[in-house]
Amino acid sequence: MKNAAGHVPGLAVVLVGDRKDSQSYVRFKVKGCEEVGIKSLLAELPRNCTEDEVVDSVSRFNEDPSVHGVLVQLPLPQHMDEEKILNAISLDKDVDGFHPLNVGNLALRSRKPLFVSCAAKACLELLFQSGIDLMGKHVTIIGRSKVVGLPTSLLLQRHHATVSVIHAFTENPEEITRGSDIVISAAGVANLVRGSWLKQGAVVIDVGTNPVEDPASDFGYRLTGDVCFEEAVNVASAITPVPGGVGPVTIAMLLANTLDSAKRVYGLSD
Amino acid sequence: MKNAAGHVPGLAVVLVGDRKDSQSYVRFKVKGCEEVGIKSLLAELPRNCTEDEVVDSVSRFNEDPSVHGVLVQLPLPQHMDEEKILNAISLDKDVDGFHPLNVGNLALRSRKPLFVSCAAKACLELLFQSGIDLMGKHVTIIGRSKVVGLPTSLLLQRHHATVSVIHAFTENPEEITRGSDIVISAAGVANLVRGSWLKQGAVVIDVGTNPVEDPASDFGYRLTGDVCFEEAVNVASAITPVPGGVGPVTIAMLLANTLDSAKRVYGLSD
Repeated sequence: MKNAAGHVPGLAVVLVGDRKDSQSYVRFKVKGCEEVGIKSLLAELPRNCTEDEVVDSVSRFNEDPSVHGVLVQLPLPQHMDEEKILNAISLDKDVDGFHPLNVGNLALRSRKPLFVSCAAKACLELLFQSGIDLMGKHVTIIGRSKVVGLPTSLLLQRHHATVSVIHAFTENPEEITRGSDIVISAAGVANLVRGSWLKQGAVVIDVGTNPVEDPASDFGYRLTGDVCFEEAVNVASAITPVPGGVGPVTIAMLLANTLDSAKRVYGLSD
Repeated sequence: MKNAAGHVPGLAVVLVGDRKDSQSYVRFKVKGCEEVGIKSLLAELPRNCTEDEVVDSVSRFNEDPSVHGVLVQLPLPQHMDEEKILNAISLDKDVDGFHPLNVGNLALRSRKPLFVSCAAKACLELLFQSGIDLMGKHVTIIGRSKVVGLPTSLLLQRHHATVSVIHAFTENPEEITRGSDIVISAAGVANLVRGSWLKQGAVVIDVGTNPVEDPASDFGYRLTGDVCFEEAVNVASAITPVPGGVGPVTIAMLLANTLDSAKRVYGLSD
């Protein structure tokens, strides 16, 4: 874009505290920017900073014309009001797609959100790239977070899938997954989805990244998905691994959202 | 409210064209207002009026401090841009709950919409009044309109139900309904849901109102639901009739939304 249009897209990330997992996610995002020529700006604030300091950081990025996407790495420290801080992000820089107006416009099929959650877009991208038809297919989503479950369920419905959303309170979740053509798990529970939960030939997307203890690993733990891969791989017709499955595609979608935002600003939209 | 607080809530309805069904829905709404002491205002515009004239009507009601709820009776004539007209309704008078910000805030469980779709609230009210527990229960919604299917699916999820949404493209819809504890039909297809689609003891809410020819009726037609009542009544543990089921409760929810809006304006909210 720099060469073609003389502009560089910019992504700003606000990181509060020193959670190892958040730091590593932010590192991946910054690295992703570098690889594709997006400028990245990082505001790091200490765990004990005030809500207002976080909002100030966000506001500065909102006003910076070289920034086209602003995101606050979640989760925030418990003493902070997540909603208030996310509300501070400009609607037109909301590259995570968490703003209620973006969510509402995603839910209403006749409307068009400015941004859609990166994880939701990543799930769809993986399905499209694998040539999997969604129209009328029964997709079960495990988990209903605003980051993954909710936006993925809404995006799939725009593509005419039949969507079931199951969660911690669901009675007999495996009965519903066993009736599904596609299972997308974002529950945050290691090895929740067993082979017996799946229909023969089902497509499985594992969005879970759960740390499990592993003395053999350099860090003392490793990341594992929601799906018991060894069992599921014998039943599924296609399955994403953890790590290395949805994660990198989610970063790519974040970069794509940032690029789209910059193109909108510079009048280069498709 | 008039006696207790010296204020009268006001509901404004914009009706375009001369569809018999729309006219009769509007009549019910106006009659409902009269019964509970809500002031109703009606703007009737001819079928061939312009979009701008409809928007002007809406704008006048937006600015009228005696009006606390504004709704445009749908469907609009085909030459009109429904989205543009609905966008004109003030967020804080959107008693139908169709504004994308209200929909987004309904979808995001940690947030609170100003208004929720009256039909969705009616379905939940009927379930609550019948003492039916929602937590973890599998509810299948047939149809995904912004008026019923979508908001009902989102509202049920706030109450921790497990929700599946099926529609015209769904393969084997009856397989999914047969696995459900509660079936809510808003497809607009007479007698779509047969007894064989239901699990023994399922709860059935029929939101369909489909005109079917009936020479014996005064009007030459009568309204029938989406559910084949004669079959379903033998299988279901509870079922709503059409007419007389969800319809009147939906009107009650519209009046409740209007009252809530007025209470907000006058600082009388709970």
